[in-house]
Amino acid sequence: MLKVLFHVNEMERWSVTLGNIKNLFIDVGEQGADVVVLANGGSVAAYGEPEIIALIQELSDKGATFIACRNSLKKLCSSSDVCVNENALPHFIKVVPAGITELIKRQAAGYAYVKP
Amino acid sequence: MLKVLFHVNEMERWSVTLGNIKNLFIDVGEQGADVVVLANGGSVAAYGEPEIIALIQELSDKGATFIACRNSLKKLCSSSDVCVNENALPHFIKVVPAGITELIKRQAAGYAYVKP
Amino acid sequence: MLKVLFHVNEMERWSVTLGNIKNLFIDVGEQGADVVVLANGGSVAAYGEPEIIALIQELSDKGATFIACRNSLKKLCSSSDVCVNENALPHFIKVVPAGITELIKRQAAGYAYVKP
Repeated sequence: MLKVLFHVNEMERWSVTLGNIKNLFIDVGEQGADVVVLANGGSVAAYGEPEIIALIQELSDKGATFIACRNSLKKLCSSSDVCVNENALPHFIKVVPAGITELIKRQAAGYAYVKP
Repeated sequence: MLKVLFHVNEMERWSVTLGNIKNLFIDVGEQGADVVVLANGGSVAAYGEPEIIALIQELSDKGATFIACRNSLKKLCSSSDVCVNENALPHFIKVVPAGITELIKRQAAGYAYVKP
Repeated sequence: MLKVLFHVNEMERWSVTLGNIKNLFIDVGEQGADVVVLANGGSVAAYGEPEIIALIQELSDKGATFIACRNSLKKLCSSSDVCVNENALPHFIKVVPAGITELIKRQAAGYAYVKP
């Protein structure tokens, strides 16, 4: 089983990331890859956009795990017009206290790192 | 032997990447590093540009391996004016069905990941 | 102990990188993470900017290691108006001959790679 951690920290990288996951599932099958996506920085704003959420749900249904950094969600609310409330997130999006810690722990657990 | 996988997914990162490889060979010698470059996304357009191809060939002669993602080559032909035909690629550029799979497998095989 | 290598190669990524390290120390404690920052490319200009240096010193005091690529320092001096002299660097910034080699060796030694 291939294990991969996608790191997304800018909004404009979501499109490439979701395309990568789609291609990976086509190439090795949904059972062939353990996919984790960690979003931090400005990229967490995507978790409040219905169009992106729909694409994420499709990939989540196929087994991909999507994670948000709580520090980034808080910063987004305090520093921009956009605010994505943690409690309003869809159930298929997990929240961790600090995305950076997740990035390290996953790699220590054998996940390959990919920054699309 | 140092093992490294360079991930290039934008045209404007080629210059830095090729410079990194040159510096690496100077620092540890051509026998001291196993270098693989995986190009996906828009960066595969470089494989159709004579000037970049010339630089790639030099590094390939020194032992570096250059790979193109087939998904990206197809997307390039269908979505832009540029089209790099897989069959017209120089012999020293290898094609894989999905670049993302290669990025994961190489790391699982012990290659360090570098995104220039 | 979490081991992490931050790769910074553009000036505009310093702010995110330093924020990541701060968040990491808050999350796991200064004793909980072995943090290394490798700067190459244009990002080494930060090592000549007093404001950034002050932030770096704070994190260095907490245990983070900051490294500069000598190739990049030389290129900066020869190709731009900015010049950061290696001998004028603060004592808490280490210099290595080739940053790219450090990026590979650290990962081979078990450091997770993060490109903010």
